[in-house]
Amino acid sequence: MIATQPTGMVMTPAEARAQMRRGEWSADTAGVVPGVAQANLVVLTKDLAYDFLLFCMRNPKPCPVLDVTELGSPVPSFAAPGADLRTDLPRYRVYRHGELIDEPLSIESYWTDDLVGFLLGCSFTFEHVMIEAGMKLRHLECGCMVPMYRTSMQCRSAGVFHGPMVVSMRPIPGGEVAKAVQISARFPAVHGAPVHVGAPEAIGIADLAFPDWGNPVPVRSGEVPMFWACGVTPQAVAMAVKPPLMITHAPGHMFVTDIPIPSLAAS
Amino acid sequence: MIATQPTGMVMTPAEARAQMRRGEWSADTAGVVPGVAQANLVVLTKDLAYDFLLFCMRNPKPCPVLDVTELGSPVPSFAAPGADLRTDLPRYRVYRHGELIDEPLSIESYWTDDLVGFLLGCSFTFEHVMIEAGMKLRHLECGCMVPMYRTSMQCRSAGVFHGPMVVSMRPIPGGEVAKAVQISARFPAVHGAPVHVGAPEAIGIADLAFPDWGNPVPVRSGEVPMFWACGVTPQAVAMAVKPPLMITHAPGHMFVTDIPIPSLAAS
Repeated sequence: MIATQPTGMVMTPAEARAQMRRGEWSADTAGVVPGVAQANLVVLTKDLAYDFLLFCMRNPKPCPVLDVTELGSPVPSFAAPGADLRTDLPRYRVYRHGELIDEPLSIESYWTDDLVGFLLGCSFTFEHVMIEAGMKLRHLECGCMVPMYRTSMQCRSAGVFHGPMVVSMRPIPGGEVAKAVQISARFPAVHGAPVHVGAPEAIGIADLAFPDWGNPVPVRSGEVPMFWACGVTPQAVAMAVKPPLMITHAPGHMFVTDIPIPSLAAS
Repeated sequence: MIATQPTGMVMTPAEARAQMRRGEWSADTAGVVPGVAQANLVVLTKDLAYDFLLFCMRNPKPCPVLDVTELGSPVPSFAAPGADLRTDLPRYRVYRHGELIDEPLSIESYWTDDLVGFLLGCSFTFEHVMIEAGMKLRHLECGCMVPMYRTSMQCRSAGVFHGPMVVSMRPIPGGEVAKAVQISARFPAVHGAPVHVGAPEAIGIADLAFPDWGNPVPVRSGEVPMFWACGVTPQAVAMAVKPPLMITHAPGHMFVTDIPIPSLAAS
């Protein structure tokens, strides 16, 4: 797997992760190593792992599980067998009882034998597929983060985990809505088909101009707001439980897997 | 959801389950209530539930999870909110330390607060879709069970669970192989696309005439043996751990869900 960085430098996923491991790469991962899937990271203690895995399984659109480490192991043996989740992301967030306490470049000092790492599909992957198919994405044109909204759609709960689905919004010209559905539906491992199209008020979004995360973007005449389940959902849901320890990637600073994006296409 | 029994009697899934609950239906469920999905049942204690769920997630083709009950609850709230897994299957098998000790019509006397029920997609559903599409299935023509084989393909392990994939085999005319792939691929929740086509020796099957479960069926001239991941896999893998208690459906005596089969089609 060879991919080109925006700078023109050719870099494999392993090379990118090695830079991160050495602390030489602390920037975000948008658009880097474009041929492979990137992933959200959620690290929790074993006592929460079953409920969290079940929550993800019951809510595959916001929480598409790409890999789960063995108890205590930082190695994602499916997504990147040579990687170490303690060092191979550019930046992390560490929460104690729901409060952000650190934003380190490595989590080696926090890692213990009773932790489990979950890698969940990420919209960077999904957007890459749409761009490859010739679609334009407003937030990228605007050079900002995609707008994300807490909705009135409740996830299916599992044990201690429950909460509303968070969605991201992309304005799409009416004539391209069907294409956007079809392209994204082929990739269930990175959120899949949209969960709602066209009527924000129907899913509890009062005003598109005020996203709960990210930046607002204009919806122009002839465009329809399309809403996809968002990877912020599992983080928000896990956070609500205020676990003694929870570690995630820092926003935009994803885990770069070895998984070629085309291999994620549903048959 | 209304469906017709082979006898011509119209019966809903709830009516079928009510008969089973009253002990009036102890026969198998092949071909009954044809519009809805049927499911394999595996009941395990909580201490094994996380590893088993992770095993299923890592091996979605042999172990497509349709529903998981809350700890101690016998209600499959997604697959059939009004059902009770302790009484609503026609017949069960109860294993202690890997040994079959009972084949009761109800498991009320075995149920405890630390049990979790897993419902996994079943090939009856998948075959229904193929038959609807005009395909002929040899084992049904022969009036016997589908032949199943232990293969040399190892499942991805998870905690204590590991083992080979079990496959079912259906001979399909060469000109219909592509159609069989396409039809089954649309239903990942009931085993999805075949895992192998045409070369039994390549997956460790020495002789098709000697299946490990079910009955042998002839492969005729111009036909190709097609192999699908089989729901026996998770049972065989769980059994190998010899858990203190494990309960399953009796072979062919499946759980009849409320889930309309078309709703399981991948987008």
